[in-house]
Amino acid sequence: MTLPPPVLDPPFNITRVSHVILTGRDLDASQRFYSDVLGLVVSDRDKDALYLRGLEEAGHHSLVIRKSPDAPVCRAIGFRVLTETDLEKAKEWLDRRGIASQWIEAAYQGRTLRFTDGSGSPIELCARMDIVPRLMQSFDRFHGGSPQHLDHVQVAASDIQRAFDFYTALGFRLTEYTARDNTDELWGVWLQRKGNPHDIVFSNGRGPRLHHFAYTVPEVRDLIHACDVAASLGYASRMERGPGRHGIGNALFVYFRDPDGHRIELFNTHYQAIDPDVPPIRWDLTNTSRSQLWGLPATRAWFFEATEFEGVEPAEPLLKADPVTLEAFLANQF
Amino acid sequence: MTLPPPVLDPPFNITRVSHVILTGRDLDASQRFYSDVLGLVVSDRDKDALYLRGLEEAGHHSLVIRKSPDAPVCRAIGFRVLTETDLEKAKEWLDRRGIASQWIEAAYQGRTLRFTDGSGSPIELCARMDIVPRLMQSFDRFHGGSPQHLDHVQVAASDIQRAFDFYTALGFRLTEYTARDNTDELWGVWLQRKGNPHDIVFSNGRGPRLHHFAYTVPEVRDLIHACDVAASLGYASRMERGPGRHGIGNALFVYFRDPDGHRIELFNTHYQAIDPDVPPIRWDLTNTSRSQLWGLPATRAWFFEATEFEGVEPAEPLLKADPVTLEAFLANQF
Amino acid sequence: MTLPPPVLDPPFNITRVSHVILTGRDLDASQRFYSDVLGLVVSDRDKDALYLRGLEEAGHHSLVIRKSPDAPVCRAIGFRVLTETDLEKAKEWLDRRGIASQWIEAAYQGRTLRFTDGSGSPIELCARMDIVPRLMQSFDRFHGGSPQHLDHVQVAASDIQRAFDFYTALGFRLTEYTARDNTDELWGVWLQRKGNPHDIVFSNGRGPRLHHFAYTVPEVRDLIHACDVAASLGYASRMERGPGRHGIGNALFVYFRDPDGHRIELFNTHYQAIDPDVPPIRWDLTNTSRSQLWGLPATRAWFFEATEFEGVEPAEPLLKADPVTLEAFLANQF
Amino acid sequence: MTLPPPVLDPPFNITRVSHVILTGRDLDASQRFYSDVLGLVVSDRDKDALYLRGLEEAGHHSLVIRKSPDAPVCRAIGFRVLTETDLEKAKEWLDRRGIASQWIEAAYQGRTLRFTDGSGSPIELCARMDIVPRLMQSFDRFHGGSPQHLDHVQVAASDIQRAFDFYTALGFRLTEYTARDNTDELWGVWLQRKGNPHDIVFSNGRGPRLHHFAYTVPEVRDLIHACDVAASLGYASRMERGPGRHGIGNALFVYFRDPDGHRIELFNTHYQAIDPDVPPIRWDLTNTSRSQLWGLPATRAWFFEATEFEGVEPAEPLLKADPVTLEAFLANQF
Repeated sequence: MTLPPPVLDPPFNITRVSHVILTGRDLDASQRFYSDVLGLVVSDRDKDALYLRGLEEAGHHSLVIRKSPDAPVCRAIGFRVLTETDLEKAKEWLDRRGIASQWIEAAYQGRTLRFTDGSGSPIELCARMDIVPRLMQSFDRFHGGSPQHLDHVQVAASDIQRAFDFYTALGFRLTEYTARDNTDELWGVWLQRKGNPHDIVFSNGRGPRLHHFAYTVPEVRDLIHACDVAASLGYASRMERGPGRHGIGNALFVYFRDPDGHRIELFNTHYQAIDPDVPPIRWDLTNTSRSQLWGLPATRAWFFEATEFEGVEPAEPLLKADPVTLEAFLANQF
Repeated sequence: MTLPPPVLDPPFNITRVSHVILTGRDLDASQRFYSDVLGLVVSDRDKDALYLRGLEEAGHHSLVIRKSPDAPVCRAIGFRVLTETDLEKAKEWLDRRGIASQWIEAAYQGRTLRFTDGSGSPIELCARMDIVPRLMQSFDRFHGGSPQHLDHVQVAASDIQRAFDFYTALGFRLTEYTARDNTDELWGVWLQRKGNPHDIVFSNGRGPRLHHFAYTVPEVRDLIHACDVAASLGYASRMERGPGRHGIGNALFVYFRDPDGHRIELFNTHYQAIDPDVPPIRWDLTNTSRSQLWGLPATRAWFFEATEFEGVEPAEPLLKADPVTLEAFLANQF
Repeated sequence: MTLPPPVLDPPFNITRVSHVILTGRDLDASQRFYSDVLGLVVSDRDKDALYLRGLEEAGHHSLVIRKSPDAPVCRAIGFRVLTETDLEKAKEWLDRRGIASQWIEAAYQGRTLRFTDGSGSPIELCARMDIVPRLMQSFDRFHGGSPQHLDHVQVAASDIQRAFDFYTALGFRLTEYTARDNTDELWGVWLQRKGNPHDIVFSNGRGPRLHHFAYTVPEVRDLIHACDVAASLGYASRMERGPGRHGIGNALFVYFRDPDGHRIELFNTHYQAIDPDVPPIRWDLTNTSRSQLWGLPATRAWFFEATEFEGVEPAEPLLKADPVTLEAFLANQF
Repeated sequence: MTLPPPVLDPPFNITRVSHVILTGRDLDASQRFYSDVLGLVVSDRDKDALYLRGLEEAGHHSLVIRKSPDAPVCRAIGFRVLTETDLEKAKEWLDRRGIASQWIEAAYQGRTLRFTDGSGSPIELCARMDIVPRLMQSFDRFHGGSPQHLDHVQVAASDIQRAFDFYTALGFRLTEYTARDNTDELWGVWLQRKGNPHDIVFSNGRGPRLHHFAYTVPEVRDLIHACDVAASLGYASRMERGPGRHGIGNALFVYFRDPDGHRIELFNTHYQAIDPDVPPIRWDLTNTSRSQLWGLPATRAWFFEATEFEGVEPAEPLLKADPVTLEAFLANQF
């Protein structure tokens, strides 16, 4: 397969993934889970929404839970652009491509542009957010997993190539990917702007749906402690997968499901990926160590359940293959 | 249930579990696994046997692999007694009870007494072993899991009550146990002499068979690193269970199967259990968090596979119950 | 030097160091320091006393701070004996030796025997203490250094040989010691009953005075986190020494001074020391790595400041030598 | 003080600090120190030079030691630019400013441009380097501190304002700085391109001299292990400072001096610093916690010793103030 060269002079400058906006049915339950158990910081809370951030974050929020009685959904994935001028350039670029976009008002954010990306996912861009104190030296407030910052999101997409084309045109660079022998088909793409393995990942599946979002934790010990605290506080059943080590991205991971079923990853150990002369790492689809360097594969739930985007009907994936689920793995052993 | 009070003046003084003697078909393969991957120290190696110890151990060996072309077995579990006099007292006590015992010659050990315990397992006692350097400050030799010392063994036994009676008569104290509601039946017993949760554990099952033996590691990070190194060196398929957190004993654990199928646990985080006025912790058999505070249960293999003792035919357990295996757990979810 | 063989059948069975009783001028300040900053659990608090324990401890207290407006002192060091019968045997042994002893009432403890040991330090023995929940699985309550249990105390003594003779007669075993070339003089002795490097340490100095008491922490990360939390909460100036690695005992350590000036060590990484056939480790007095494997030595304050025992006038040490203080070390460099 | 706004459209795109070129008198000694003790990977070694990299680095080298019998110096600090075009733009920019620059041949690097920066330090830029395997998943090769990548360099400079002006014009952004009350004088500036606290730091002092260069380590445990391994292998005297926690940058650090006296920092725990709307953190020069959140300050050696650049005569600093050295701190206490 020949991957296209990276676009090093994109039409506007997206700097990083910034935030995720979800809905939840019970903000008290969400706050207990995200703040008391996992250790995120509550930046604000009103009757309609809960605003959370990681301990080192100076931006007001990286996770927003909006109260809604309906089936839980993701309303948008947010990215930062460098300047207000980049927002204008984004608008122009979208207009030129015939992609509808709207300026919206978003609390605690600067001017915000909403549109739909190449995977069908709702995206918003902003250049500014209210500044709040970084709490990375308020060590007395560290608890649970002591999550530091939102690092990436993963989206299940029905057409990986289309998502890939959209984001690489915007200067996202491929760090790792999965493909099948002797074909050009992309099955999963790890794309970044901020110089580590990923800001956004697209994996082949019924989509678009938000598979998970991920916060970094400082140490292996913090990741294990998050599991222990979850167990202590009655949330053991919310642990879905791990701890384990992803081959792709090299993350030591654990996945939780929040009270509304949204999936959050805590992880550790990424690497620097800044230089454009370093080729992306290819993982063959048959290599199960891409998802887990050790031991047992993920359950069917991890492979097949995800959060729908509000008002977006998911489509079946163009590429068809059965992942090696834990269920299949165990069935084959006996 | 009324548990008997601890015996605080036992007939002779067993101080701790000391060593495990296994057979293996390929000592090179054993050495690669235990030393290169997991990080045990090779104390000696000849054509017949491989002698291993943990990094902090001053006794010559805590694990012996004797070369044998036959199906891999455990030849004996070894305990230390405080003095040579205790060995004499042990002989007398066994004679008085009509339990056959033999003085044997064991390389690198002082005079050694071999007999069969209340579970049918072959046991040996010695008061001395050749002294070798503790390597706990040779930090440059730490690798893999950096295992420090043999901490305990677990034996699947067909009659837990009988095993319990045998060991408690010798001053072993119960720290934790599993039982079924409203009965006096013991299903699992955690027994100790050295002042932490366990020197030997008996769990209900086809037995006697050696379920596993366990080494301590210094930190969570070392346990995770052992998994990573195993994956790096091609031993991912030897990881059977974990990392996870046992409810009982509070150990953060990971289980590996060695090249002959013997099971070894690396773990962290025990607790001090010295005072006889502290009652043992009871776990109900229906409480799955006893085996895993978080997430998914163990596979069928972990529950049902174990190492036979040489020349000892295992018997079916007196008590019958199906453990919640990972296979059953997943089947029930869908 | 010829060290005497260990006494393996002592006159009564001391099992471990149990607790320390200090005075403090402001129990609120003590509670903030020990509980909010370092992470000890408050077992009880009334107007006269603060009772603290480590997270895994089932005994009611391992540290008692009694309110007193006077200069802060240590009132007693407590040890556990195995049974009430051992208490009776202890009384007889002391009487036989002409050592005064008294039965006292101590809240939350069983019958308690008070006497003065061979170093002149006030000691108390008890066989029982009120049982409280072990919180080792209440992971949500872990904070600061997450101290697990009281592990040892260190006493500055003017006559090390006399302290050594007293404790070894009671079955304490020497694990490590410092001595000068070609003499029999003991300068520091690490003595244990519970099977790890130390329950009580005597170091040459103006004494008897309590140099420090020490709690274990689970991980290196917890030790570092205790330092960070101390800094976050305004207690940086209470950090006296470390983090560093002791040669003797192999502990990764940090020392704090409490609001009354009492010194507490948090540490990690001891080793198992159960077998009487293993000889103690000798460190030469000129080997500075005994106190610190890495980097800089301790300050003068660490070497010369300590807590007096109530009503006990310290004496100058029989042996005279200047330790290598940080001050002297730096002065010699330039 | 009014800091200038960041330059968001620099004349050419420097992406990160890339490498450091030192001289050493004995490459065997350098290799033992950097590879055997600290854990860097040897990419190449010939009779003239030793090329080293961190475990996750895909670029051929981040540290070069060139053999020289003379007093050890730093020959250059290297930065990466995004593309070859950026190199051309850099040349033009330097020419326009009248700053001399030369194209040089550097082994394993693409075309390389050498010049002198605003602090008087020799700098080289390149857009490409030979690609070598990232070893971040060769966990069996992790040892010592398991350093992952070169993260930043610190330069003592006689005129901080001039260095600041030079680098901010090139798009370096200020994350943290030290200044004196009520003046505009910059005493220390933390400058970054790659989105974390620093690629290059300038601190007031006799300069230009290379104060240190720094590699990240995965965990607190790795940092402590580096110290332990150094002690095990006889390098304790090469530990100059720490472990400690910098207020500025929030790094848990330890500083070593290599066999030639060059200073290397291993550290952990940086934070993401991507958004231009977040103001830099100001630390007052009188606040000693900027250099150490806990405990004792650095020695005089740490403050005053540094590596000269080849052929560059250092000048005395324009701003004069005495740092609080450990020596002064201790002298004031007694």
